[in-house]
Amino acid sequence: MFRVYIINGPNIEFLKARNKDIYGSKSWDEIYKRLEALADELSISMYYSQSNYEGAIIDRLHEIYESEIADSDIYDANNLKINSDCGIIINAGAFTHTSYAIRDAIEMIKIPTIEVHISNIYAREDFRKNSVIAPVCMGQVTGFKGSSYGLAVLGLMEYWNNNI
Amino acid sequence: MFRVYIINGPNIEFLKARNKDIYGSKSWDEIYKRLEALADELSISMYYSQSNYEGAIIDRLHEIYESEIADSDIYDANNLKINSDCGIIINAGAFTHTSYAIRDAIEMIKIPTIEVHISNIYAREDFRKNSVIAPVCMGQVTGFKGSSYGLAVLGLMEYWNNNI
Amino acid sequence: MFRVYIINGPNIEFLKARNKDIYGSKSWDEIYKRLEALADELSISMYYSQSNYEGAIIDRLHEIYESEIADSDIYDANNLKINSDCGIIINAGAFTHTSYAIRDAIEMIKIPTIEVHISNIYAREDFRKNSVIAPVCMGQVTGFKGSSYGLAVLGLMEYWNNNI
Amino acid sequence: MFRVYIINGPNIEFLKARNKDIYGSKSWDEIYKRLEALADELSISMYYSQSNYEGAIIDRLHEIYESEIADSDIYDANNLKINSDCGIIINAGAFTHTSYAIRDAIEMIKIPTIEVHISNIYAREDFRKNSVIAPVCMGQVTGFKGSSYGLAVLGLMEYWNNNI
Amino acid sequence: MFRVYIINGPNIEFLKARNKDIYGSKSWDEIYKRLEALADELSISMYYSQSNYEGAIIDRLHEIYESEIADSDIYDANNLKINSDCGIIINAGAFTHTSYAIRDAIEMIKIPTIEVHISNIYAREDFRKNSVIAPVCMGQVTGFKGSSYGLAVLGLMEYWNNNI
Amino acid sequence: MFRVYIINGPNIEFLKARNKDIYGSKSWDEIYKRLEALADELSISMYYSQSNYEGAIIDRLHEIYESEIADSDIYDANNLKINSDCGIIINAGAFTHTSYAIRDAIEMIKIPTIEVHISNIYAREDFRKNSVIAPVCMGQVTGFKGSSYGLAVLGLMEYWNNNI
Amino acid sequence: MFRVYIINGPNIEFLKARNKDIYGSKSWDEIYKRLEALADELSISMYYSQSNYEGAIIDRLHEIYESEIADSDIYDANNLKINSDCGIIINAGAFTHTSYAIRDAIEMIKIPTIEVHISNIYAREDFRKNSVIAPVCMGQVTGFKGSSYGLAVLGLMEYWNNNI
Amino acid sequence: MFRVYIINGPNIEFLKARNKDIYGSKSWDEIYKRLEALADELSISMYYSQSNYEGAIIDRLHEIYESEIADSDIYDANNLKINSDCGIIINAGAFTHTSYAIRDAIEMIKIPTIEVHISNIYAREDFRKNSVIAPVCMGQVTGFKGSSYGLAVLGLMEYWNNNI
Amino acid sequence: MFRVYIINGPNIEFLKARNKDIYGSKSWDEIYKRLEALADELSISMYYSQSNYEGAIIDRLHEIYESEIADSDIYDANNLKINSDCGIIINAGAFTHTSYAIRDAIEMIKIPTIEVHISNIYAREDFRKNSVIAPVCMGQVTGFKGSSYGLAVLGLMEYWNNNI
Amino acid sequence: MFRVYIINGPNIEFLKARNKDIYGSKSWDEIYKRLEALADELSISMYYSQSNYEGAIIDRLHEIYESEIADSDIYDANNLKINSDCGIIINAGAFTHTSYAIRDAIEMIKIPTIEVHISNIYAREDFRKNSVIAPVCMGQVTGFKGSSYGLAVLGLMEYWNNNI
Amino acid sequence: MFRVYIINGPNIEFLKARNKDIYGSKSWDEIYKRLEALADELSISMYYSQSNYEGAIIDRLHEIYESEIADSDIYDANNLKINSDCGIIINAGAFTHTSYAIRDAIEMIKIPTIEVHISNIYAREDFRKNSVIAPVCMGQVTGFKGSSYGLAVLGLMEYWNNNI
Amino acid sequence: MFRVYIINGPNIEFLKARNKDIYGSKSWDEIYKRLEALADELSISMYYSQSNYEGAIIDRLHEIYESEIADSDIYDANNLKINSDCGIIINAGAFTHTSYAIRDAIEMIKIPTIEVHISNIYAREDFRKNSVIAPVCMGQVTGFKGSSYGLAVLGLMEYWNNNI
Repeated sequence: MFRVYIINGPNIEFLKARNKDIYGSKSWDEIYKRLEALADELSISMYYSQSNYEGAIIDRLHEIYESEIADSDIYDANNLKINSDCGIIINAGAFTHTSYAIRDAIEMIKIPTIEVHISNIYAREDFRKNSVIAPVCMGQVTGFKGSSYGLAVLGLMEYWNNNI
Repeated sequence: MFRVYIINGPNIEFLKARNKDIYGSKSWDEIYKRLEALADELSISMYYSQSNYEGAIIDRLHEIYESEIADSDIYDANNLKINSDCGIIINAGAFTHTSYAIRDAIEMIKIPTIEVHISNIYAREDFRKNSVIAPVCMGQVTGFKGSSYGLAVLGLMEYWNNNI
Repeated sequence: MFRVYIINGPNIEFLKARNKDIYGSKSWDEIYKRLEALADELSISMYYSQSNYEGAIIDRLHEIYESEIADSDIYDANNLKINSDCGIIINAGAFTHTSYAIRDAIEMIKIPTIEVHISNIYAREDFRKNSVIAPVCMGQVTGFKGSSYGLAVLGLMEYWNNNI
Repeated sequence: MFRVYIINGPNIEFLKARNKDIYGSKSWDEIYKRLEALADELSISMYYSQSNYEGAIIDRLHEIYESEIADSDIYDANNLKINSDCGIIINAGAFTHTSYAIRDAIEMIKIPTIEVHISNIYAREDFRKNSVIAPVCMGQVTGFKGSSYGLAVLGLMEYWNNNI
Repeated sequence: MFRVYIINGPNIEFLKARNKDIYGSKSWDEIYKRLEALADELSISMYYSQSNYEGAIIDRLHEIYESEIADSDIYDANNLKINSDCGIIINAGAFTHTSYAIRDAIEMIKIPTIEVHISNIYAREDFRKNSVIAPVCMGQVTGFKGSSYGLAVLGLMEYWNNNI
Repeated sequence: MFRVYIINGPNIEFLKARNKDIYGSKSWDEIYKRLEALADELSISMYYSQSNYEGAIIDRLHEIYESEIADSDIYDANNLKINSDCGIIINAGAFTHTSYAIRDAIEMIKIPTIEVHISNIYAREDFRKNSVIAPVCMGQVTGFKGSSYGLAVLGLMEYWNNNI
Repeated sequence: MFRVYIINGPNIEFLKARNKDIYGSKSWDEIYKRLEALADELSISMYYSQSNYEGAIIDRLHEIYESEIADSDIYDANNLKINSDCGIIINAGAFTHTSYAIRDAIEMIKIPTIEVHISNIYAREDFRKNSVIAPVCMGQVTGFKGSSYGLAVLGLMEYWNNNI
Repeated sequence: MFRVYIINGPNIEFLKARNKDIYGSKSWDEIYKRLEALADELSISMYYSQSNYEGAIIDRLHEIYESEIADSDIYDANNLKINSDCGIIINAGAFTHTSYAIRDAIEMIKIPTIEVHISNIYAREDFRKNSVIAPVCMGQVTGFKGSSYGLAVLGLMEYWNNNI
Repeated sequence: MFRVYIINGPNIEFLKARNKDIYGSKSWDEIYKRLEALADELSISMYYSQSNYEGAIIDRLHEIYESEIADSDIYDANNLKINSDCGIIINAGAFTHTSYAIRDAIEMIKIPTIEVHISNIYAREDFRKNSVIAPVCMGQVTGFKGSSYGLAVLGLMEYWNNNI
Repeated sequence: MFRVYIINGPNIEFLKARNKDIYGSKSWDEIYKRLEALADELSISMYYSQSNYEGAIIDRLHEIYESEIADSDIYDANNLKINSDCGIIINAGAFTHTSYAIRDAIEMIKIPTIEVHISNIYAREDFRKNSVIAPVCMGQVTGFKGSSYGLAVLGLMEYWNNNI
Repeated sequence: MFRVYIINGPNIEFLKARNKDIYGSKSWDEIYKRLEALADELSISMYYSQSNYEGAIIDRLHEIYESEIADSDIYDANNLKINSDCGIIINAGAFTHTSYAIRDAIEMIKIPTIEVHISNIYAREDFRKNSVIAPVCMGQVTGFKGSSYGLAVLGLMEYWNNNI
Repeated sequence: MFRVYIINGPNIEFLKARNKDIYGSKSWDEIYKRLEALADELSISMYYSQSNYEGAIIDRLHEIYESEIADSDIYDANNLKINSDCGIIINAGAFTHTSYAIRDAIEMIKIPTIEVHISNIYAREDFRKNSVIAPVCMGQVTGFKGSSYGLAVLGLMEYWNNNI
């Protein structure tokens, strides 16, 4: 059974207070419920966490490493442990544009990671156009409002099933 | 029945000659066959075109406007005709980074458009990090190799079904 | 009765250790005592918090939203809840120059917010000249040492009394 | 008795013609009347001038020097005359962003100067984000519409009363 | 009867001393005489002013506002007075590239304004390629030597006659 | 009889689909009809072409060279053939900002060329503020909606009649 | 027998209309005749094409791939087909500075390619100093007027003969 | 007896998961054991802390101030307390490049601080070349893998023994 | 008899209020008296003016043109009048860094002009390192405090005497 | 008989220690021997020098001037001596990117100079993409490993034989 | 026995004339004597050289290559000779910021090299913050005044003893 | 008796080969002869040196330090030896724009230094507009052709005679 870890960064759950033209009209609870249904349908185990603290997101990435990779006996070309039965979907919120520390954590744990955004970050302020974590992720899904998460799950499924 | 227009820019079909680590191991024919299957399954009409000519891509966008919008009797807030039963998926290849003319065409025809990329353009040369068409698209899917197209189709489906 | 929330970011309370030419000769306790006196005089309820954690400041902004806005039945033009009987005074310290996450939180909770600085940030190192939160605040008071806070309170009073 | 000099730069008095969302709904006359009332209340002598000419603003700063500093017998560490019983409040309008000549004049007359702006200059066009005079002023008050001036007067009062 | 205000900035009348390849071989007097003939022919009232002082140009713009707009009883969407029977043609000379104060004045008086240049400013030094007033003007005519003014008059005529 | 060549670049004819505040309310057909009337009135022969292909625009410029210059027996100072009885009016659309190839073609054929734009390109996105073809044109007319073309024709007439 | 493909981009053949100090006094026909003589002398098959269309140049590169590489049974380290008995000489004209699409095509077909320029592009306008195709070519020859092509042929000969 | 405080930022202890060419083959435990041996040998008290939270690092710096400086009766030229019998060695990980808040804390506590890095940060991505804390540290040791810490301890010893 | 025009820009005469380390200890009166003595000794007529108004400096340059050049019957290569028996020494103060209008005036009147500065502008703030008038002056003398003027006079003397 | 001067800058002869993928597998001795053979074949006198000192390269350029130009009685348009029977081939190594002093020397001695590079400098680090000497050279040959020198000799031959 | 080469660049020995706050109070002779004692204690052979000539430093690096590497029979992965029993410590002075030629020499000789600086180069002028040689060195020690050299020796010892 | 050291950098003496419009028509010998006459007249000892080697210029500055400062018993505020009876006039040629090593040498020897240039470096290529040595010099004289040196001597005389 595949495992996907959803990680939300600062302010993400607070959609009720944000501009609906940009963030869509669904609350996070509604988005998450559809996501759970999709995971059930695909028989994927899904684990969710959210934090406004950059440090907590890094801690979370380390925990995922410990549970997914530490006991693995598959190694990559650099003789570092890996595991390709799991994946991470991260919406790092505004940390997307500044957190080299989250980037380092993603890069080193070597789990396929998809960057998602609810809004089309390229149609907004200039500072939102640069993602410092994108270069160490496998792919990116942006602009589909709450549905960006589900598309990312489907994208990981393609990866796990070797369709990519 | 929904209609999706797939538009590929320069060099896209030529995957056989390109680095498989970056572009995946499937040929364009294989990618397209899976895409057709998905469209069939979702009962979507799909129309495909490819060109190495920037002008041909713009012409194509105008044609789509003529067949989808010209006879529509729905109007947006600016009293311009629209039609939300169709969508465009565009992989503009290297034109992504320079073609303001394609951007203008996308912006003015007012059909929901998804930008896709086969590779993770954010993990490559600096010039590939900037998309001049992203600000006028609805969303972006990058890095899922050939599967990026299918995810975009699913994303449009979410949009047509008002899940976004 | 009006309510003002004072939020201090990293290192702000530690004035005793900092250059007095730049930060003034008063300790934070002295500054705060004068501030309390002013609030009392103006019959304003004042709530104080400080943190060296970016995440804690964002959490605090969410809490303020919950207590001030969640039960409000006033709506703005975008149909989002608002409340104009309260205000926030924030000295985000060095987060001022980098935290788009705090900026997002301020922008979305829609409570009038004043940015204050003890020193004249424009007369110091170049990196201090750019505030990423200023564009989403109502106003800014800088350079009056500890008195910057009191002036911000008076400025909010002008706002609440419709003198602005 | 303390003395404050109010200096307005180009277009400032012409609020009637300007966007009220940005500049507030009060005319300059209304703003100034409230300011006079405040000065009276605080027993401060207030002197007002406005010009659309950069040169006239520099001339005015020289005149203030002549009347306030020239006959002073207090000297600073560089053996230059000073006088701390007076202050200047300047809204240099669009000269804020370009006039190194006004900056030089402010810096050399050594009278505490407060930069004010009616609008939140940080929430507007990029060119308005840089003030070339801020580095030589004591502090800055921006975004409180017409009330920015009164807050600056109160800030100077804090300075004169050694509360800063 | 339509009214057009011609405003020339620094050094403009001094064509006799300037490079004829760039500025043409006509003196300002010759240019102006042709312009008067055109105005007569079109039954337009024309008012001329020139100054080497940025402040004088701003004053002039305020005067035009007073005579054209102050007594108008037409209002725009922001409830600010307007008047579309007049127009301004401005050649701000070298102020074109630096004067945000003139830009502010043009923007706020809300009279259709055409920016003209005698030379092709885009074929000269780099600093001449950026006009800070262009974004608040209605249009721009450059490079037709002295005839740029006449073309601007004809352009305003198109506007007044609702051909634009 | 003078000859003028009108060249439109990508998307230009498609005004019906574009924002009327920016592009005006006239269709291209209406604009062109007025232009023809003007040409007739002035006894100018007018030749029109449009393309979404950069290459086609370059080809067109070469054709114009062949018919206007190749058989000329007038030479410029560099001993290259010229002909001053004709002119070009080009609206290169989005190619304006990127096509050094069109620039090279304009520069080398040595026919007086006027750059026109329907909208005020300086009041829009940043990328529209830079024209790479402006330095090799004789002049520029922007912002007069469809009337920009007619003004350019009148400008060429000034040139042909030696009024410039 | 070795095969060399000469590809000329926009405006290249039109030397008759261009500045002889920069481009030399020979017509393209004269240049090409000398080149043919050289190819004959070296027993090289030479194929020539020119286009003002970026898309046509990409198409041409694909055709060369089809005829030279598609049937090859030599593979590089990435298991992609190659063929080292042929070469390309490209003068992309003004596309040199902007066409990432041509760059992609050159990079992916894996045929040794030489970039040539007739003029010394480093002694001209700033925009000509950057070649976006240079990083994927084998070498560059610039500034020898029409002889740049012949030198490139000789350089390929060195490569084919393993002298490099 | 001298006291040294070792502070590690985000991801530092997680060496097992990181590229050994860049970070060396020793685990953090091995590195720390050698460091303890060195401290014992030199009779230095060593205190260790690590956090992925920027705020926790700032808190830690404040704690060190409280225990080392608060009760000191030595003062610097600005009449601020200091203490030169202790030192800090900080590897702020990716916070190195962005945390002005950590920089402020280091600068204000006035304890000699050495910045260390395990890898040669100058031989990696561009963003790692800029340290915002370096300007307020005493010195920097980079690139000696785990041994960077020991060299920093020896460097502090030189300082305490007045050999610097 | 040679004629030299001394033009001082904003704040220059106000040396008494400025930092003596940077501007020297002499008042402007003392500097000017020495300058007069030098002019007498060299039998040069000297004319002085100062203004804080950019416009007044431009007017002054036009006046000098009228009296020196208008009646000249010497012409330069462009058939513009010149006169090499006079010269200008200008210290444009802070206008040095921004006034393209003064630059235009200097360039067009074609009188040899020397830029002087009392302080070493290259050893101060960054914005003082760029002079927009330097490219159109004959030479520059900076950093000799009040003596910069005298050296400029001597430099003009070298020019008039054909020693340059 | 024509004369060619080969000048190598720092590290050039030390090919044995450098990456063969970038610099080719031939030693400098082997490269030079082939070059001598070519010169003999073409009856060209060849003079070689190498230095790691920028100053020595400048001295060498002066010596060449003395022997080639000083006694010439041919003059260019500026009445400076020239001589077109000789040429220089320079590989300035890393000085290419920084030495304005070598540039000045090349520019002033007026002998046709070809810049060569063994590697393709455009496919390497960014700093290698800018040559400060290219603008004053006649042409450039890069990327043909050791054969770049021979191609440059052939290029000079074309020049001497008036084929350019 | 290990061998270390100390190379000092321009101005380094001249500490007596330099600011002691930045460079420390020890003369170079005192620094070197302590360094010799350390080398003796560690049984390292130490070779010293200094030059104000960039070329001499490059020559020195070549000499070291000749004596350390030329006769080695150890090869790296690129089949280039190496030798890991020696090391270089270089303080390139101001060449640090500009000399790509020294960088090339260090990179190609493949001997472990440590960059040292006496002062903390990151706490000084901006131009000192960029080292062009750092990317090709093994590590860097800065800010420990004269002790930086000794720490670098100890760092090399760690490397030779395989503790890194 | 005062002593002045003239130091010329690369290419300076080679005026015969350089553009006379920029560098004047006098040879260096003629310039120097006039300079000697001036020195004699003012009873100044003058010492001349020139080098194309950056290192030699630094050596020369050290020698001057040894003969002028080493035996001085005057000290500055930092307790470093100084001597104000001598001065340096340096024309560093193209090193002006790049040599931080010469800058360091000038700064540390603490002898008043004047930077001179024969041409007006601000009217030429962009790279010539930045002098890295200007910030550590006392003043600058540029653009007076060979007379720049004499004016610098007179400027030093002003300094020695305490007229500055």
